[in-house]
Amino acid sequence: MSATPRVASLPKGTFSDEAARYFFRDRDVQHVYHKLISDVFRATEHGDSDWSVIPIENTIDGSVSLHTDWLVHEVDLPIRAEWVYPAVQNLVGLRGELSGESGDWHPDNITKVLSHPVAMAQCYEFLRATLPHAELETLSSTSEAIRTVSENPGKGWAAIGTRTAAAEYGLDVLQESVTDHDNNYTRFLLVGNREYENPKATTHKTSILITLPDDYPGALHQVLSAFAWRRINLSKIESRPTKKKLGVYYFFIDILMSMDSVLLPAAIAEIEAIGCQVRVLGSYPSLPYVE
Amino acid sequence: MSATPRVASLPKGTFSDEAARYFFRDRDVQHVYHKLISDVFRATEHGDSDWSVIPIENTIDGSVSLHTDWLVHEVDLPIRAEWVYPAVQNLVGLRGELSGESGDWHPDNITKVLSHPVAMAQCYEFLRATLPHAELETLSSTSEAIRTVSENPGKGWAAIGTRTAAAEYGLDVLQESVTDHDNNYTRFLLVGNREYENPKATTHKTSILITLPDDYPGALHQVLSAFAWRRINLSKIESRPTKKKLGVYYFFIDILMSMDSVLLPAAIAEIEAIGCQVRVLGSYPSLPYVE
Repeated sequence: MSATPRVASLPKGTFSDEAARYFFRDRDVQHVYHKLISDVFRATEHGDSDWSVIPIENTIDGSVSLHTDWLVHEVDLPIRAEWVYPAVQNLVGLRGELSGESGDWHPDNITKVLSHPVAMAQCYEFLRATLPHAELETLSSTSEAIRTVSENPGKGWAAIGTRTAAAEYGLDVLQESVTDHDNNYTRFLLVGNREYENPKATTHKTSILITLPDDYPGALHQVLSAFAWRRINLSKIESRPTKKKLGVYYFFIDILMSMDSVLLPAAIAEIEAIGCQVRVLGSYPSLPYVE
Repeated sequence: MSATPRVASLPKGTFSDEAARYFFRDRDVQHVYHKLISDVFRATEHGDSDWSVIPIENTIDGSVSLHTDWLVHEVDLPIRAEWVYPAVQNLVGLRGELSGESGDWHPDNITKVLSHPVAMAQCYEFLRATLPHAELETLSSTSEAIRTVSENPGKGWAAIGTRTAAAEYGLDVLQESVTDHDNNYTRFLLVGNREYENPKATTHKTSILITLPDDYPGALHQVLSAFAWRRINLSKIESRPTKKKLGVYYFFIDILMSMDSVLLPAAIAEIEAIGCQVRVLGSYPSLPYVE
């Protein structure tokens, strides 16, 4: 086996692949691609890879709740880092094929646009305004859409997808950032048993899972008291039904503080003392987005 | 225009379609199908349909966060009902083609399984254990997968998808409920300006959106106090970043109480009094699942 560390992610050209490359920019790693997110998780759980890259919020690479459930129920892999990425979709195609004499691509030359259904929805206003006559066809991923366009030249087809996939399949970015809102973002986690450090990290986060002792009104309120009086800032809170019993919940809480601090372990100890179960999913650097 | 009320949803054979049929079981309505969730929303917003059916939790019909954002930012349609549906995937194909002399389908006869990538992931253990040699191919929806199998007889193909879509395209359910965990569920909302009543509803919920006046530690804790001391039970809480400013959040809260009660409007008035913005997204019946 090679000594080069291995990073598992969804296939080349997906946002997950872009995230995997970002986590290990300028480092010697081997990228290993899996079509199914379950295989991405299992690769690291079985030791075939050192880390897995998991899309966890606002993603079109699979289902957020499924990935979250896997992280909690199916595997036991600590979170090593997070990256919040402004998910930008582009209109891509063969410029030469879609252009008139001016050399610029022309909307009338586009007969069909292919993409992932959610990417289509994110670019809805753009498509309606710029390409009202184009047929829309949905495929299982944006990279699949780009691949299909590259394999069907001369038909006036275009795709909505990433810059990486466009480059991969030799297509041109006809128009950048065609998403209707420029504040979409996607959040990725790096999980695995191997340590990960990044000197560029400016913030540190801790993710915990809290299960309340009973489904009584106000239990969550009591839990939050432990953070509130210490002025510990939370960046996320989300309830999810446990899979065991209807009406019983666990809570994901993201805290803007490292477990190395004095305050956070004290808060967690108090929450456990009142009868809650607390599982620390990871205490990790949050990487800033840098172009 | 016909006087029959119109219900917009994602295409025939999707879970959304099953939900639309459930909401209007035994009623005279016209089902209108749209490929894009944006068109499902717009249909009712523009008055072409009376209601829209929106998959809102644990769904593979599109992206939950996108649908939630649309409900908050893009359209102003009150929630009229919810339905929580145990999302069951099945192995479907042509029984005759995949069977030996015994008349039962045999795993060795299946060369390829087609489905939506998330449905594949939900049935991961089943596929690995029962059909380890089958090729896996992902398409944009489970109904698309079933349609593709129906159009390619004689090749040993099968699909993972819904019972409705199997019936629609003349395929057999080879094995029921092949999802690895039998407690998956999907939540659907019925939204629209037209009233909706259902005598079968056993519970009532109210969904609100709270924006905190400032991102100060403990603000959420204070908001929850208003519910806690009244012993008002919450069934969901979720923070989402506002699209306006980084680090500012709004909270979705689902409350197990109708706005017709005395306590809930009082709690909301107090939360507003401390400087929070509250938007009531709807107060509606929650329909039980009945086979």
